[in-house]
Amino acid sequence: MNRELGERIIGYRREFHKYPELAWKEIRTSARIAEILEKLGFENIKIGSEALDTEAILEIIRLNEEEKEVEMNRAIDQGADEKWVKKTDGYPGVVAEYDTGIAGDTIAYRFDIDALPDLEPLEEGYRPYDEGFVSQNENIVHACGHDGHTAIGLGLAEMIMMNRDKLKGKIRLLFQPAEEDYSGAESMVAKGYLDDVDYFFSLHIGLSYENQPLLSNGVVTGCSDFLSDNQLDVYFEGRSAHPSGASQEGKNALLAACTAALNLHAIAPHEEGLLRLNVGEIHAGTGVNIIAGNALMKLEFRGENNNIADYAKRRVLEIIEGSAKTQGVEYKIDDYGQIPTAKSDKESMEIVGKAAEKVDWFKNIYEEGNVGGTDDATVMMNRVQEKGGKAVYFGIGADINQPLHNCKFDFDEEALLAGTELCFNILEIINPQ
Amino acid sequence: MNRELGERIIGYRREFHKYPELAWKEIRTSARIAEILEKLGFENIKIGSEALDTEAILEIIRLNEEEKEVEMNRAIDQGADEKWVKKTDGYPGVVAEYDTGIAGDTIAYRFDIDALPDLEPLEEGYRPYDEGFVSQNENIVHACGHDGHTAIGLGLAEMIMMNRDKLKGKIRLLFQPAEEDYSGAESMVAKGYLDDVDYFFSLHIGLSYENQPLLSNGVVTGCSDFLSDNQLDVYFEGRSAHPSGASQEGKNALLAACTAALNLHAIAPHEEGLLRLNVGEIHAGTGVNIIAGNALMKLEFRGENNNIADYAKRRVLEIIEGSAKTQGVEYKIDDYGQIPTAKSDKESMEIVGKAAEKVDWFKNIYEEGNVGGTDDATVMMNRVQEKGGKAVYFGIGADINQPLHNCKFDFDEEALLAGTELCFNILEIINPQ
Amino acid sequence: MNRELGERIIGYRREFHKYPELAWKEIRTSARIAEILEKLGFENIKIGSEALDTEAILEIIRLNEEEKEVEMNRAIDQGADEKWVKKTDGYPGVVAEYDTGIAGDTIAYRFDIDALPDLEPLEEGYRPYDEGFVSQNENIVHACGHDGHTAIGLGLAEMIMMNRDKLKGKIRLLFQPAEEDYSGAESMVAKGYLDDVDYFFSLHIGLSYENQPLLSNGVVTGCSDFLSDNQLDVYFEGRSAHPSGASQEGKNALLAACTAALNLHAIAPHEEGLLRLNVGEIHAGTGVNIIAGNALMKLEFRGENNNIADYAKRRVLEIIEGSAKTQGVEYKIDDYGQIPTAKSDKESMEIVGKAAEKVDWFKNIYEEGNVGGTDDATVMMNRVQEKGGKAVYFGIGADINQPLHNCKFDFDEEALLAGTELCFNILEIINPQ
Amino acid sequence: MNRELGERIIGYRREFHKYPELAWKEIRTSARIAEILEKLGFENIKIGSEALDTEAILEIIRLNEEEKEVEMNRAIDQGADEKWVKKTDGYPGVVAEYDTGIAGDTIAYRFDIDALPDLEPLEEGYRPYDEGFVSQNENIVHACGHDGHTAIGLGLAEMIMMNRDKLKGKIRLLFQPAEEDYSGAESMVAKGYLDDVDYFFSLHIGLSYENQPLLSNGVVTGCSDFLSDNQLDVYFEGRSAHPSGASQEGKNALLAACTAALNLHAIAPHEEGLLRLNVGEIHAGTGVNIIAGNALMKLEFRGENNNIADYAKRRVLEIIEGSAKTQGVEYKIDDYGQIPTAKSDKESMEIVGKAAEKVDWFKNIYEEGNVGGTDDATVMMNRVQEKGGKAVYFGIGADINQPLHNCKFDFDEEALLAGTELCFNILEIINPQ
Repeated sequence: MNRELGERIIGYRREFHKYPELAWKEIRTSARIAEILEKLGFENIKIGSEALDTEAILEIIRLNEEEKEVEMNRAIDQGADEKWVKKTDGYPGVVAEYDTGIAGDTIAYRFDIDALPDLEPLEEGYRPYDEGFVSQNENIVHACGHDGHTAIGLGLAEMIMMNRDKLKGKIRLLFQPAEEDYSGAESMVAKGYLDDVDYFFSLHIGLSYENQPLLSNGVVTGCSDFLSDNQLDVYFEGRSAHPSGASQEGKNALLAACTAALNLHAIAPHEEGLLRLNVGEIHAGTGVNIIAGNALMKLEFRGENNNIADYAKRRVLEIIEGSAKTQGVEYKIDDYGQIPTAKSDKESMEIVGKAAEKVDWFKNIYEEGNVGGTDDATVMMNRVQEKGGKAVYFGIGADINQPLHNCKFDFDEEALLAGTELCFNILEIINPQ
Repeated sequence: MNRELGERIIGYRREFHKYPELAWKEIRTSARIAEILEKLGFENIKIGSEALDTEAILEIIRLNEEEKEVEMNRAIDQGADEKWVKKTDGYPGVVAEYDTGIAGDTIAYRFDIDALPDLEPLEEGYRPYDEGFVSQNENIVHACGHDGHTAIGLGLAEMIMMNRDKLKGKIRLLFQPAEEDYSGAESMVAKGYLDDVDYFFSLHIGLSYENQPLLSNGVVTGCSDFLSDNQLDVYFEGRSAHPSGASQEGKNALLAACTAALNLHAIAPHEEGLLRLNVGEIHAGTGVNIIAGNALMKLEFRGENNNIADYAKRRVLEIIEGSAKTQGVEYKIDDYGQIPTAKSDKESMEIVGKAAEKVDWFKNIYEEGNVGGTDDATVMMNRVQEKGGKAVYFGIGADINQPLHNCKFDFDEEALLAGTELCFNILEIINPQ
Repeated sequence: MNRELGERIIGYRREFHKYPELAWKEIRTSARIAEILEKLGFENIKIGSEALDTEAILEIIRLNEEEKEVEMNRAIDQGADEKWVKKTDGYPGVVAEYDTGIAGDTIAYRFDIDALPDLEPLEEGYRPYDEGFVSQNENIVHACGHDGHTAIGLGLAEMIMMNRDKLKGKIRLLFQPAEEDYSGAESMVAKGYLDDVDYFFSLHIGLSYENQPLLSNGVVTGCSDFLSDNQLDVYFEGRSAHPSGASQEGKNALLAACTAALNLHAIAPHEEGLLRLNVGEIHAGTGVNIIAGNALMKLEFRGENNNIADYAKRRVLEIIEGSAKTQGVEYKIDDYGQIPTAKSDKESMEIVGKAAEKVDWFKNIYEEGNVGGTDDATVMMNRVQEKGGKAVYFGIGADINQPLHNCKFDFDEEALLAGTELCFNILEIINPQ
Repeated sequence: MNRELGERIIGYRREFHKYPELAWKEIRTSARIAEILEKLGFENIKIGSEALDTEAILEIIRLNEEEKEVEMNRAIDQGADEKWVKKTDGYPGVVAEYDTGIAGDTIAYRFDIDALPDLEPLEEGYRPYDEGFVSQNENIVHACGHDGHTAIGLGLAEMIMMNRDKLKGKIRLLFQPAEEDYSGAESMVAKGYLDDVDYFFSLHIGLSYENQPLLSNGVVTGCSDFLSDNQLDVYFEGRSAHPSGASQEGKNALLAACTAALNLHAIAPHEEGLLRLNVGEIHAGTGVNIIAGNALMKLEFRGENNNIADYAKRRVLEIIEGSAKTQGVEYKIDDYGQIPTAKSDKESMEIVGKAAEKVDWFKNIYEEGNVGGTDDATVMMNRVQEKGGKAVYFGIGADINQPLHNCKFDFDEEALLAGTELCFNILEIINPQ
């Protein structure tokens, strides 16, 4: 890779790091991506409401008009091109395609673009602070490497355009919002962007491999062990009462939540594989001398396959209903839906392996392995595979200073250059000249 | 009271003490009562199936034909008159009436006749053993004074016959089975024996008064603080499974019972008065390496008034249903029904007070007070009062060696003579010549 | 009472209503009280650190220097006299005494002065809003009538001064902070102001009598049914972990709190009387996908006597320790101490009754009864009685628009005038001329 | 195999099936084994107290002298040789050895001999009934195939003696009691019979292979997935009290058990592998109207490795202690110890595979796999491996009519003949001529 491109990629990463945006608010990021792609020569770029099916966004997380306006104004204030911001219609996400005009497979790449809610420290010795790209948006930080993913996507776009004469088939770049929240992948799938894809590639930097950090110069060609992930917010709604007065009039939502939590953690295991459940939060009651009339319980459960996830869901709902009944309280559930399991295809993993071999930086190429975690890329993988295409999720090693999701997470930026090259090499392997 | 009658009363008490019978098995006791009453001159004595409505007996405690036969044979073996045993039809209980033929109020007395399941000790220094009237029926003992109550009833019968020329109105004697179990009072009420009663008297020896034992020479003229009492057996029915195999197939009845027990004990108090609940027993599971497919939970709850009892019942049923749901198990409930609360009438209490004043033995006459406990005499009291009559439950003091329900309970037998006189005096006060 | 004084009393009430202050922040209120008393002729007025023992304030609720300064500056901004504000030393509370110089009993009155945390509505039809005395301090409101109590205290002070020639003995006025929080009464007791008191009077407006609101023209001469009240904040401190990763490393504080809550509500009743316990709040966990490493549980328990309170406390501590152990978590407890039970003296109740009879406004004078609730006036009552004095807590009726502690609570201000007169009449009854 | 031997093996199996004996009561079985081995020419046979270290038997399951005598008499009544019964000293188990006198490896085989507590049905169509070998000992049944294992052991003994000239090294046959209970394997290990073993073989018929039944003509050469297994009986000891009286005096053992059960089932999983826990039984309380003063809770837990088992044990003990504390009750634990995990050696599995290849009946030879379950053969395997020997546990396929542990379990007896041959073939493979 030429040095100038390498510097631009790192520059992109730092720019996005400086202006991190939470899920469904990535307006500046999206506008900047579109602006850069346009300059590179991409045409017919889809942004915001054209890049995704806005109906597919979970109602409980959808921004209202006022909130959208706030974000659009902020994006412009932070340097986004007003034209592109307007085009977003208040929704993030970008889809760009380069059609070589020559017969060949359709290849799609997915890059996630959102950041996390946490406070990035203003601390000497911490590179983003020392080198001036620390977050300008309070309580928002790119602690999951999506700034790097976005930069790889833009680097890849430039390489495509630089080599456009040598390529075949169609190449689609999906800059997806809201990986850390919900509906990001779903909304692009719902718009149909995965229906005609022959090969789908998604990636992450700084993951682990078989319970060890995957460091610089390493790559895992594919992950097949995604746990499904469901999340529910349960609102128990009882009736407050004075505990020393007419306590018989109370309907104790706090005790309903406690009964539920104990029973949820006691759900029997499933013989087919891993089932993990957690009641992560309970917030119940409004005063020490009031029988608690309400309680919020937040829980998630993950399963190694669909049978397990279905079993878990049935048991979870039984327990919530039973526990509510036990205290005579009502309940409602906000269901954030399921991030499904997925499997990487063997053929695609081999392509990633070959593409990595051509990049000097990669010294350690690991085959299929446990890269850990949950990623809604699985929604796209499943759609591609249902339609007959191949899909893979691979991991790019990077030395890291802190674990993922830590507010001081930083990584070896060389990984971005190697990752960009790897992505580009894939094109030649699938559609060779 | 003449000495011979006093000795007979004590003799009766000791005979019944020697041959105690559990609830619904008081065949020997009933036959002996009938035999004695007949000799005294009572006519048209009702026994067993004529003394009560057999349909009113809770199905879960009803004896089958074989069991009845066993009891009838045992009764004969233990000296009961075969004629009367046959007449019982396998049911205990006796009702005898003396109609003076002269206009006057109808006065009913209730004496309970059953014993308790416990092992009476063969121990020197314990009077029933030393004086040869210790229980001949293993694991059955008169530890609640009903042997004495029965003796008072027979002593009263003799005094009525001795003084028959001086009396007015009708006098009915109810020897009731199964006070310690269920349906005893109900079955006599259902037969109509309380419908036409003007004054109803029920009594107990050896109770307490305002949390202190009520000793010899004392009497409390009436009790108005009965707690209602409900008892349920709950059968949770789940599905067994291997805990290290397909544990997801299990439906854990043990955890349902545990969830229920904790929530039941956590029922909020009621502002109107005492509510006491107890899960007294849980028996769950059949093997340590089997997910428990079944559990039996036994519970009772008591309330100071009907609002409280109704509230408790609603909450109990909610908790059972909810807890079962929590583990996906079914349940069924054996409901033993309710022993209700009751209040003694002021007028009747005054009658008891006057009747006691005429007995030298009574030195301490206490007005209405807390005599403690639960007694199904309340079922009869409620019926009498509904029909316009007056009812009372009073306490006869007696020095005791052990608390009620202790297997070594014994008491000052002089109380029986004084109690008999008191009962007789009532007749003259209500229907004076 | 002359009209001008009546208007002044109502004016005081409205002024304090407009500038409500939370417990331990009543600097403006205290400074204004001192300023008014000084103008009336009281000498040697004790304020702030001279009115109470600052060491007796629970450490967890004590303001730091910075916070005190904020409150003192605000008080001045809101019209308090700078001289008196400075004298407070940052602590609220005022004690003033008038010594007649003539032999006679020492009589003390206690008036509580703090407000509650809630948002008073700016709503037409709500008198404080319509008439311009709605709270100027956001989220603080006089919803418990202490504005009225303070006004009565100042009205009484003026009547004392107006009639100073007719009085005997010593009269002490205690304007107590922090009744709604902790240590208010304790800190004045610790300073010794109750040690030499012969008669102690405390009062409340707008309470209930035997479960019915005590309306205008009514008075209850004394309350003897205070439940003791203990409050604890329990912090369970475990260890967070990833629920789908090394979950065995977690120590689940949320489940410890749930186990505790269920067992706390299941504490067995006490035969000696009422025991009421409530776990009012649980706040556990920081994220749905994190095993909860911490939990805060807020609970209170009340008992009808000390045996019950001691029993409850022992059981509460056992359950907290056991539940923590169950999950392998640590805990610490912030104990807010106990507001004790107390009994009004018969003699004092009779004095209140006579004093009320002399006030035309009082039509319904009820003897000793249940006025409900908990009030740390009991700390003062107990001290007075220990030292041989007499104490009483009485209730002044008032039509109210909302129950106490409702953010829109308002009341019939006529009750303040009647209350002031009643308080003054007491002086003549105890120390007649 | 010659037909006569085959018939004898099946005859043995049916004889043992007809006289099943529970753990530690296998006196008839042991005496018969010794008698048969002696007739075959084995010398110096060890039986009962000579076959095992009686001190190694867990005290809670050891028979007393009276019980031993009962079993010895019964054994004689059921046809056992009196000489051998006497030699048992009231303990089951047999060890026999044939020393070829020629240098070579020491090879040990283990056959378990005990039956299970259940009622075998007298039902037409059920072969043991139809063919006259249904259990003669009420409520005892060979439902786990140990009758077959014993028969294989005796068949192997006969083949050894028939071929004694061709063999090398030493061959030891261990007929082990009490596999279904505790201390069976331990007691033989403690006696030293495994210390000098070069190759150890243990087997089971009718198991599964990778979650499918292992049917006739199949064999699995080795199992390496044993879960460890711990079992505890927990006795919570509180204090009974009257629930409507002085309930504060109670210490509720039932609620302690319920709290423990819920928390035990809620123990967090371990990232290193399977952890399965079950509270299989709770028996609490003695009467519905008594606060339960005692509770027995039976639980087991299994883990995939020692870290997991240690973690589980630590958590179990924390929960028991914490739950007891929660109700102020004491507890004691009967710990049945641990059946450990174990791994089959590769070399031994290959030997089994080769030995199976030489038996026509085996068509499906599966390599190492999950055969399921827990077996205390692992205690012997671990000892052999610690001392430098090789050990294996293999599965012999058999068509079955019901799952293992079902009271109607029966199997294809041809498997016994093939199993015997396989065992014999091992000798030639290890110590070839």
